Amino acid sequence: MRTTVGIIGAGPAGLLLARLLQNAGIGSVVLESRDRAYVERRQRAGILEQGTVDVLRAAGVGARMDREGIPHDGIELRFDRRRHRVDLPALTGGRSVMVYAQTEVCKDLIEDRLTGGGPLLFEAEALAVEGAETDSPRVRYRHEGREAVLECDYVVGCDGFWGVARTAIPDALSRTYERTYPFGWLGILADVAPSHDELVYARSDRGFALLSMRSPTVTRAYLQVPEGTDADDWADEEIWDELDRRLEVDDPGWRLARGPITAKSVTPMRSYVHEPMRHGRLFLAGDAAHIVPPTGAKGLNLAVGDVVTFARALAAHLDKGDPALLGTYSETCLRRVWQAERFSYAMTTMLHRAPDATAFDDRIQLARLDRVTTSRAAETDLAEAYTGFPF
Amino acid sequence: MRTTVGIIGAGPAGLLLARLLQNAGIGSVVLESRDRAYVERRQRAGILEQGTVDVLRAAGVGARMDREGIPHDGIELRFDRRRHRVDLPALTGGRSVMVYAQTEVCKDLIEDRLTGGGPLLFEAEALAVEGAETDSPRVRYRHEGREAVLECDYVVGCDGFWGVARTAIPDALSRTYERTYPFGWLGILADVAPSHDELVYARSDRGFALLSMRSPTVTRAYLQVPEGTDADDWADEEIWDELDRRLEVDDPGWRLARGPITAKSVTPMRSYVHEPMRHGRLFLAGDAAHIVPPTGAKGLNLAVGDVVTFARALAAHLDKGDPALLGTYSETCLRRVWQAERFSYAMTTMLHRAPDATAFDDRIQLARLDRVTTSRAAETDLAEAYTGFPF
Repeated sequence: MRTTVGIIGAGPAGLLLARLLQNAGIGSVVLESRDRAYVERRQRAGILEQGTVDVLRAAGVGARMDREGIPHDGIELRFDRRRHRVDLPALTGGRSVMVYAQTEVCKDLIEDRLTGGGPLLFEAEALAVEGAETDSPRVRYRHEGREAVLECDYVVGCDGFWGVARTAIPDALSRTYERTYPFGWLGILADVAPSHDELVYARSDRGFALLSMRSPTVTRAYLQVPEGTDADDWADEEIWDELDRRLEVDDPGWRLARGPITAKSVTPMRSYVHEPMRHGRLFLAGDAAHIVPPTGAKGLNLAVGDVVTFARALAAHLDKGDPALLGTYSETCLRRVWQAERFSYAMTTMLHRAPDATAFDDRIQLARLDRVTTSRAAETDLAEAYTGFPF
Repeated sequence: MRTTVGIIGAGPAGLLLARLLQNAGIGSVVLESRDRAYVERRQRAGILEQGTVDVLRAAGVGARMDREGIPHDGIELRFDRRRHRVDLPALTGGRSVMVYAQTEVCKDLIEDRLTGGGPLLFEAEALAVEGAETDSPRVRYRHEGREAVLECDYVVGCDGFWGVARTAIPDALSRTYERTYPFGWLGILADVAPSHDELVYARSDRGFALLSMRSPTVTRAYLQVPEGTDADDWADEEIWDELDRRLEVDDPGWRLARGPITAKSVTPMRSYVHEPMRHGRLFLAGDAAHIVPPTGAKGLNLAVGDVVTFARALAAHLDKGDPALLGTYSETCLRRVWQAERFSYAMTTMLHRAPDATAFDDRIQLARLDRVTTSRAAETDLAEAYTGFPF
């Protein structure tokens, strides 16, 4: 098989890239190691930045998002029994975010791809990227029990942190940057209307909590838990009790609504960047090149930024014969990536309690929150980063 | 001896407080353990916030500062071979800072006090504060070989981190917050005109450097050095060479001017807060209650904020019979103190290289500097904090 762009991975990055290329008249093939049901079930992020919303709409795949997604014009910061709303559009000249789960984005993009007839192979496991330094890179993969080769002009690795694409970049040319955290997130889905109509980020002496939502009838919530925690160690009522304690606030109007928990899992926290994001005709996008802790809701949005950058660069090259943007792909993406890493790290350290936190550390966290909630400049800095760095 | 306010310590906090009280018609006695020559020779901070400048002027002790001080409307951030000027008044609605050494502030205040005839005893070592919980607290001190007692209505401890005032607050009522840093500052004075007309804060892979000045003909400069460094371990030329390397920038116009080094010393770095800052009729001000690392130039300015707050509160009590401001002295000061602690910590961690810094940490520092120098909101946040939180 032969195509212009071989795309490894049918997560949001790979699927959106296929659509962006199609819109630009550029052919592609998407290889996905899992089956369709698995991909459409994976629970991941749920906050789309303004720029991501704009891209999905402009690409022609935003119709259901616009019908079912929940636009949010603010987030709440909760600390020291206080609550403070960050008014996103007021601080950023009209930018806001959309609550629409990544899994729904994937469903829309898969439906779109299959309807449009573009090649998308499920259960097609990429084994290796070869010839990245040549003009004709190849993806070796296994599909329906046989090995096959996808011949390409370009390969884009959208295959996540554990994928093979990144391993095709020689170690001698790679630099990696990493930080792990001694805690993770215990996440739940519950069949109960969200207790608040916007996201609540809570810092407490007991650790971080996040109150979010999947829909008007489904609550999504998270608790900071020690690294290595097993989700099954937490009984449902214990989770609600702990959320209640961490969300405590001096406001008689506040009440946490409880309901049946339908899913429960623990996500580890990691910061990771691989440089460069390009090697010859192999390009990395999304989690294949970088991981952020989820506190800033940046993971999916970074992946969108990467593939927008690639699609724009390739179109400039093929349509106008200008290879400059392809040449600077890695630098362009990494600048935004490092800003997202910085922001995600800052949000994480401002809101989570490290196991070895001192009383001084606690006070610095409260002083940071006090600053963000009393200085328009500091609040604007946060709101700009939360609604997204420009693509 | 008897007075309304017994002031322990003739640093800038104690001396300014005496003047502020005198302006309000309130009597005070200042006890200082050292002799006058020592106090007037101590090298300390040199950056006065806008609010500090305003207070010294309004108190009638700003004449020489206005003649000899050097107003600065900007600071330079240097990193990754780039230089960026932070335009302080443009970002803060007209606020800036003044370069005028703490030791000069002290000389002016001592001259003023001795001319005005207010009691100021040198070589009067405070031994203990007694009766803080009563209506008539006392300071026991030793002067001219004899023990004596200063009977007061109020005692203000302006006697620094090692002073006795803080020890009069029972441990059971005290909370302390502390952080030490595995590095210090090697500071020099040199007889050479400053190489740049504003302060330069430089982050390099070799560590932090700060280029400052004492006057148009005297350079003040600092190098981050490992904790425990002996200043004499550094030869003069080694210091200039290292400053040259850390201040490297892609600008052919840049050149570091060298000259004879006249003083050399190492300052340790520490963050420290004691809560509360009041116990009965004993009030703590300045370093007696809190220490910041010098990176944000906040130490002297915090002390000024404390004594302004105390003088205002006591005048309200004595003139209008309103004890409310005295009652909230600790809370009022601590809010500003914690913001200064936060800012000093942020500047320190953004610019210094920790001995165990990872490649990830380095990139986060560069991303923070990139953010501060490209987002007006982030730059405003820094400029507001640098020029000072309101008294």
